[in-house]
Amino acid sequence: MLLKNNIDSIKTLIKSENVLTDREERYCYAQDSTNTREKHSLPDAVVFVETIEDVQKVLKFANTCKIPVISRGAGTNMVGACVPKNGGIILNFSKMNKILDFNPVNMTVKVQPGVVLGDLREFVESKGLFYPPDPSNLRVSTIGGSIAQSSGGPMSFKYGTTKDYILSLTVVLADGTLMKVGAGTIKDAVGYHLNQLIVGSEGTLAVVVEAELKLIPKPEASRVVLAYFDTMEEAISGVNNIIASRVFPATIDFMDNNSITTVEKFYPCGLLTDKEAMLLVEIDGFESSMQTQQERVEKALKEAGASNIVVASTDEEKKSVWTARRSSFAATAKLAPDVLSDDIIVPRTNLAKMVRGAKDICDKYGLPVCMVGHVGDGNIHPQIALNLENDEEFKNYISAKSEMYELAVSLGGTISAEHGVGSEKISYFEKTVDTEAVSYMRGIKKLFDPNNILNPGKIFEM
Amino acid sequence: MLLKNNIDSIKTLIKSENVLTDREERYCYAQDSTNTREKHSLPDAVVFVETIEDVQKVLKFANTCKIPVISRGAGTNMVGACVPKNGGIILNFSKMNKILDFNPVNMTVKVQPGVVLGDLREFVESKGLFYPPDPSNLRVSTIGGSIAQSSGGPMSFKYGTTKDYILSLTVVLADGTLMKVGAGTIKDAVGYHLNQLIVGSEGTLAVVVEAELKLIPKPEASRVVLAYFDTMEEAISGVNNIIASRVFPATIDFMDNNSITTVEKFYPCGLLTDKEAMLLVEIDGFESSMQTQQERVEKALKEAGASNIVVASTDEEKKSVWTARRSSFAATAKLAPDVLSDDIIVPRTNLAKMVRGAKDICDKYGLPVCMVGHVGDGNIHPQIALNLENDEEFKNYISAKSEMYELAVSLGGTISAEHGVGSEKISYFEKTVDTEAVSYMRGIKKLFDPNNILNPGKIFEM
Repeated sequence: MLLKNNIDSIKTLIKSENVLTDREERYCYAQDSTNTREKHSLPDAVVFVETIEDVQKVLKFANTCKIPVISRGAGTNMVGACVPKNGGIILNFSKMNKILDFNPVNMTVKVQPGVVLGDLREFVESKGLFYPPDPSNLRVSTIGGSIAQSSGGPMSFKYGTTKDYILSLTVVLADGTLMKVGAGTIKDAVGYHLNQLIVGSEGTLAVVVEAELKLIPKPEASRVVLAYFDTMEEAISGVNNIIASRVFPATIDFMDNNSITTVEKFYPCGLLTDKEAMLLVEIDGFESSMQTQQERVEKALKEAGASNIVVASTDEEKKSVWTARRSSFAATAKLAPDVLSDDIIVPRTNLAKMVRGAKDICDKYGLPVCMVGHVGDGNIHPQIALNLENDEEFKNYISAKSEMYELAVSLGGTISAEHGVGSEKISYFEKTVDTEAVSYMRGIKKLFDPNNILNPGKIFEM
Repeated sequence: MLLKNNIDSIKTLIKSENVLTDREERYCYAQDSTNTREKHSLPDAVVFVETIEDVQKVLKFANTCKIPVISRGAGTNMVGACVPKNGGIILNFSKMNKILDFNPVNMTVKVQPGVVLGDLREFVESKGLFYPPDPSNLRVSTIGGSIAQSSGGPMSFKYGTTKDYILSLTVVLADGTLMKVGAGTIKDAVGYHLNQLIVGSEGTLAVVVEAELKLIPKPEASRVVLAYFDTMEEAISGVNNIIASRVFPATIDFMDNNSITTVEKFYPCGLLTDKEAMLLVEIDGFESSMQTQQERVEKALKEAGASNIVVASTDEEKKSVWTARRSSFAATAKLAPDVLSDDIIVPRTNLAKMVRGAKDICDKYGLPVCMVGHVGDGNIHPQIALNLENDEEFKNYISAKSEMYELAVSLGGTISAEHGVGSEKISYFEKTVDTEAVSYMRGIKKLFDPNNILNPGKIFEM
């Protein structure tokens, strides 16, 4: 807990207009986009950092006083990764939101952590380049947050996640020291990959203040193929057929019957509610390859039993076929006061088992679940609708969640593909990760943050 | 140094036929593919491991006795990464060379470290899949070695290096404990990326005994466009034009005039020896996109001043245009008793300066240099011909090398893109990497290997 004189000290370090200490203002920072019953604690202060020096000053001070420091972008994460567990200082990066350097020849860009992902993508796309990671909240979420969580998105199937685009990171260490990891060149074989250690560490090892990112040429064309299936198994067999035909779609997303019917109920758009699964396959590349790819995808899907195939080529058509998938969270949210979007991944070989198993588990506990996900990867997001205030429903949810995770791990999968662990999955972490690996992660955390001030109580307990 | 009774102990742990202790046999393991004047030390024993348990037994024993353990694949590395600095045990992985599991649906493969890269590539390609990392020695080098060095190759421009294909690693720790890092799923957001920390750590943190690798669909077609330029600047401008035309070639390789003339001298194949640079651009993807890509590449190159463009479409034609580039090391080796192939990378914006600068430095010291490289990445391999036994030439080489590295770093680059640091670049390591980062790398090394038995004297000194 920060004492009054600690807060006064911060105000001597940082422009006072950038330090929020009123209860009402701090209240907004006790939560993020996670629906949870967990009681997060109020931060003692929120500091809007404007420079690297600001970050260094706050950390040096906090480390001396052993005060928690929690970095925060737009707060869109789903696992309670950027909320205090026991007070402390929130570092708000919304004022460090500049694109610092853009090198179209080298296909690299250097950014501050507060840059909004959607803005970055738009900027580089206007120059013919592409930054693929596309978490669903990219219109508001920041590059800093996506580095903390190593965010993915539908396009991760073909293009990988955030970690695959990190060339160098400039970070402030727990004691305020500045460190640059990674040379910033397209390849780098000089020493350990500390940049890869920090990406995805959820702000627990260091605070990222600058990032050099790799870009690729923007594919010039794309089309979306939508198809329905009578069974989940057929849908997945369609995905397998696509790969066997040597097409590598940017995205292969799906919705189960509950998702389809729920979306159609609240946002009618002509979905076929008698089908068990819908696939959305986005192909991209050269205009001259579009017809080949489309034909192969259609053939692959038909051979698996697809019906009612729709192909979208124009921007308007594409937007329209994506609407249903994009409305799924909002529609599910109308079923009950709260909706919790989970994040599970298994080898695609076991995906049908995982989807059916998760559905059966939720049914057993009487919890409505709408399943969507990135099936190319084997990644599903079960969206569970419930009333978190209802003790019985909450108890059932906890049991269902735990059983789903056990099933995922037993099928060769894991408990998060792109959301992270945060505080929401911390109690499942040690059941999932190799015991030795957990112990080395603790050792690394201790090395980087001996006083455990950086986002304590996330990923694992010290 | 191992004592006689230590060696006897190893023979009680491991089948005696798998333990080599004769001086003649050990002698082969005092060197790798690195041309160097550095005196490596003779290992005390070479152990052919057959199982994970073998590796665990050797490490447990070695850690107790504080004996160095150096893992070795095919020994093709160029930086002295797998030779003893002060005796110890060589772990030879040539008997752990099985493909353990192949999952074409999930596009993953699980391998032992001794699998030869070329065999792995051929195997997965026969199933329509692709493992892109392609170091030039892939016909003999192993997946274990490529994980140790995070190897790249010409195709890294589009497809990344080894680190981008590591899903999980099973490793034996210094004390013999087994650890699995990474879930093996296509995406994984659960805890720190320890697999990314170990790939590229040159055997200094743990010994890899199994790896799960990500595969992608094999592009169905490729063509190679060869072009000549009067100046290096024009060649690089051609590369920039290609990217601006939104073509992302698998490979953009180059040869400078010295390379061209040297190859033509020893392996005449009709190269144009009056040109300053030759580019080899390999495009890949759908057959239906080949014409589009080829036309754009030709246009991009012509606009930059290219002449004598040749397009290769059949396997035979492609092999033929690649022959010159692939002969460059062998041809350079005919200029003097020794040839040292270096590995430097800079942002492509500064590549022309780097190439000219490296040439000027070598000229100043009277050292013939043939420059080849992967110019898409900004990665060049200056191949310097000299007589290592000649003190004067050797002294000049050391000066030239040091100046080239300084130039690379001053141009925003670094001292290795894909070869690693090993023992050859260890004295330049701390001049290149951020001081704080070096200190954290040391901390991590100490955490993983408190007795400094794992490949000591590589990357950095403890």
